[in-house]
Amino acid sequence: MDFLRVNMSTKKITVEKVKERYRLSGNRGLVARLSFDEIDPQCHPLGPNNKLIIGTSPLDALGVTCMGRLSVGGKSPLTGGIKEANAGGVAATKLVRHGIKAIIVEQTPVLGELFLLHITKQGVQLKPAKRLAGVGTYTVVEKIYEEYGRDVGILTIGPAGEQRLASAGVFVNDLDGDPSRAAARGGMGAVMGSKGLKAIVIDDDGDCKPEVSDDKAFREARTAFTRGILDEPTVKFYSEYGTMGGLMSLHALGALPVHSFRRGSWEKAEEISGDKFHDIILERGGEGKNTHKCMPVCVIQCSNVFADKTGKRIVAPLEYECAGMLGSNLGIDDLDKIGHLTRLCNDVGLDAVETGAAIGTIADAGLFDFGNAHRAEELIKEIGTGSVLGKVLGAGAAVVGNVFGLRRVPVVKGQAIAAHDPRGIKGMSVTYSMSPMGADHTAAATYRAPVDHHKAEGQLDASRNLQVVMAFYDNFCCMFIMRGIIKKPELFVNLINAVYGTNYGTDYLATLGKEIIKLERVFNIAAGVTQEYLPEFMRSEKLEPQGLISDIPQSDYDRFWDESFWGEFPKIRRD
Amino acid sequence: MDFLRVNMSTKKITVEKVKERYRLSGNRGLVARLSFDEIDPQCHPLGPNNKLIIGTSPLDALGVTCMGRLSVGGKSPLTGGIKEANAGGVAATKLVRHGIKAIIVEQTPVLGELFLLHITKQGVQLKPAKRLAGVGTYTVVEKIYEEYGRDVGILTIGPAGEQRLASAGVFVNDLDGDPSRAAARGGMGAVMGSKGLKAIVIDDDGDCKPEVSDDKAFREARTAFTRGILDEPTVKFYSEYGTMGGLMSLHALGALPVHSFRRGSWEKAEEISGDKFHDIILERGGEGKNTHKCMPVCVIQCSNVFADKTGKRIVAPLEYECAGMLGSNLGIDDLDKIGHLTRLCNDVGLDAVETGAAIGTIADAGLFDFGNAHRAEELIKEIGTGSVLGKVLGAGAAVVGNVFGLRRVPVVKGQAIAAHDPRGIKGMSVTYSMSPMGADHTAAATYRAPVDHHKAEGQLDASRNLQVVMAFYDNFCCMFIMRGIIKKPELFVNLINAVYGTNYGTDYLATLGKEIIKLERVFNIAAGVTQEYLPEFMRSEKLEPQGLISDIPQSDYDRFWDESFWGEFPKIRRD
Repeated sequence: MDFLRVNMSTKKITVEKVKERYRLSGNRGLVARLSFDEIDPQCHPLGPNNKLIIGTSPLDALGVTCMGRLSVGGKSPLTGGIKEANAGGVAATKLVRHGIKAIIVEQTPVLGELFLLHITKQGVQLKPAKRLAGVGTYTVVEKIYEEYGRDVGILTIGPAGEQRLASAGVFVNDLDGDPSRAAARGGMGAVMGSKGLKAIVIDDDGDCKPEVSDDKAFREARTAFTRGILDEPTVKFYSEYGTMGGLMSLHALGALPVHSFRRGSWEKAEEISGDKFHDIILERGGEGKNTHKCMPVCVIQCSNVFADKTGKRIVAPLEYECAGMLGSNLGIDDLDKIGHLTRLCNDVGLDAVETGAAIGTIADAGLFDFGNAHRAEELIKEIGTGSVLGKVLGAGAAVVGNVFGLRRVPVVKGQAIAAHDPRGIKGMSVTYSMSPMGADHTAAATYRAPVDHHKAEGQLDASRNLQVVMAFYDNFCCMFIMRGIIKKPELFVNLINAVYGTNYGTDYLATLGKEIIKLERVFNIAAGVTQEYLPEFMRSEKLEPQGLISDIPQSDYDRFWDESFWGEFPKIRRD
Repeated sequence: MDFLRVNMSTKKITVEKVKERYRLSGNRGLVARLSFDEIDPQCHPLGPNNKLIIGTSPLDALGVTCMGRLSVGGKSPLTGGIKEANAGGVAATKLVRHGIKAIIVEQTPVLGELFLLHITKQGVQLKPAKRLAGVGTYTVVEKIYEEYGRDVGILTIGPAGEQRLASAGVFVNDLDGDPSRAAARGGMGAVMGSKGLKAIVIDDDGDCKPEVSDDKAFREARTAFTRGILDEPTVKFYSEYGTMGGLMSLHALGALPVHSFRRGSWEKAEEISGDKFHDIILERGGEGKNTHKCMPVCVIQCSNVFADKTGKRIVAPLEYECAGMLGSNLGIDDLDKIGHLTRLCNDVGLDAVETGAAIGTIADAGLFDFGNAHRAEELIKEIGTGSVLGKVLGAGAAVVGNVFGLRRVPVVKGQAIAAHDPRGIKGMSVTYSMSPMGADHTAAATYRAPVDHHKAEGQLDASRNLQVVMAFYDNFCCMFIMRGIIKKPELFVNLINAVYGTNYGTDYLATLGKEIIKLERVFNIAAGVTQEYLPEFMRSEKLEPQGLISDIPQSDYDRFWDESFWGEFPKIRRD
């Protein structure tokens, strides 16, 4: 497997054999290791010395379920620290089939230049892409399909990324051709924009795959792995209802964001519930699907296609985080409207979580009124057109707070808290505060951990242990395999051993997970990104109706990074 | 002496005797100690749990030169860490004469409430001040004079502070009645705005002063102290030319900010030089003065009154930092125009350094063209009126960078670098990077240190040693006493011993200076404010014409906080 290096200043493209030490690094782990090895933590996130790292899984292209995940990472313009965001879609597997383990985009072109990177079996080319300047992601992919055919994999940014706004994501096309799989969080779209890269197009003509050490063992392990997932009873619910299926549980726990995190439950929650969503999809028919694959090989199929009354696709998927952040958080109780807002975020190229938080925050400045979907739409469009107000929103919730002098700003390390209120699920207090990823719920969503979510006790360990496991999963695959695999880690390790000829035990999960988080943590310290606490209002303002605050004792946070848990931390290269 | 506590939520005002441990804490030292003791480092800077601390000198009101300094501090909305900014003017001494060592403003009122705090011998009162809402500082003081007479001391904020913008300062009236002495840096005006406090008015009827332990020794020490300052030959130059006298030296060194830190010397520097400024003032006559006291007792008198061609006052003073940041940094070579911009910053209630940096930065977004003073004026007025663009600028240069996706942003810890380019005076690289105060040149302006300013060698020690001395001065007095006293520290210690009956040796300077910086450092770590490096462009982009970059080795920065230098760091209270 190779690393593909693309220098946006010289336009030189080089292919280099992957060194041994990166062999089992994938996705988030690859971002962590490459950032640690190659990115100066003191660089400007939008400057020439940041790198845009696009990583794949060491287990992709082998027909194993859930491994076709694509990671995008580097130094984040939102947090100032390391960030990795990942997405499904069809691009990752196509990259691996070209023998490309990672793309490393380096340096910056002259401001205003815009390129498209085209990867084919014949070679890799940078092509001028001025004609795509300012174009929304849905139109970008259509234009690309016209020129390159519909079987290509695509990564693209929208107008937000071109404007180098810190809530811009990178969007990947799905099996139906939509650019709706978002490596959303942390502003990697802005980094791609700073590199003058509008899109990456990957032809479907690759024929590589990772060499398998023991084919028989691999086939057995793959079957067992798939069965392990499907044997888990909750997976069926998940296939049927997707992430939306959790909305009413979060509402019941009091962890649904309502009116910019003012309440944790909502009298209108039923209107946007997973049940209602599921029934609408089935009732409407047409293009709508309540279960849908986000990437080529997946037995869970938690995604969906949400169609309007005429059966025409609004957006695919509508995830819980969107319904939470663009719905209840903004007081919008109409799934169709939430669907349209989500599609608009995708088109402008925005992280829907950050955008929902930014719009919710700006309500305190009198510029948004909860429940007004039309106004939300106007504001998202302003981000696309680049008005000053639009740019402020696109810079994220923290900047909105700075510009309007507000103090109810739901961010940690400059990044918006996701739709799991850390007062209703107190373990999220630890995840958001301590994860090197900032307030990213995917770092460890503790709502299934066996703890009382309304008590402070036990949350430190619940989150920390889960963060380690998630970092391991994030090195290889979609986090949703956890439902089946978290109780049977040997199924995962057997797979790795069969492919790579290794002999790991189940302790490899913790070893690798910790290694990744330690690399990230050390990078952040060198970058000076060390805010490790929730916004004050979440520690003092009671979340109704349950009257909850986040009250994890400081002594718990203080022991989070104890070497007795993590082992020794690596030393970063300092020039 | 007392602490005056003002609770803006309950409106309760309490007076408490100063505890022994604060006895010799003054100004910046008092801000450091009180912040460490009382402010939760994790609080929101604009929230109820931040405090606005207004501190005075332990040697004020005793007729000692340069001791009438007023400090304003707390947790900064600009840096997120601790910040102290100080100013001259007439308020500090009047406060001390009321027996008030510090005012501690706590909690927050209902949003939109606005008050004036009136301090008289008869008592202290909070009065509604809605009629002053949105009013510029020059008009505020006139309205206050009409009601309270002209002999009051005033602290006020402008529209920027009311908008809680992080480049808002606190303005103090001078001996001529102008509100032009600015505790400018770090957004303390925004904190005052968040407390709903438009102004503090201090009647002139106080009659307290610190008790002197040994009157005879004190009188001798005071005389020697004054003589120590006046005996220093450069003080005469300073009295005559003020801070503007240094402009051509900074130009010669290549440390003058030109076109948003693109050059360090300027072909038009002569146009805004200290000589030219001095000659214009004398030539024009009228209200203009080339030497002027900023506070009641001062033998240096480095301030000035800058009058227009008709002899009418434009602004008092015009300091070098304003000429640098609003002049050469913006390509404006006309002293009259720079004077008007400075006055406008005062009126809107802005830190001229942050504002100049923000406008310079926004040039890269095409919204300002260097040399266009009219456009600069428009932009500053927009901050006052609160347009979205104005608010972005008022939030400071770092936010401008975030909103417009820029990478040439001259900030450290979110705070703009002052008019001493750290490539032309490399010691400033250490000061800006490492001071807990952020990129504040007053933390240690190394341009007089005996080092080669264009070499990296020796800068770590030059800056670190000076930071310690400055922290000591900042505990008591105006930093400009250093010219005479830095070589004769015993003159300072004798003064303290005579008043407080202590028996300190000259090692007290380092002891106290280090203590203050350590308190600040520990506060910042607990607040998660640890960015300790210059913006990347200053480490990589050659500053012409000298071709300089900031190249202090990382190993020097790494040893800055060594306990072998600082001794043990205090432990912060963690709940």
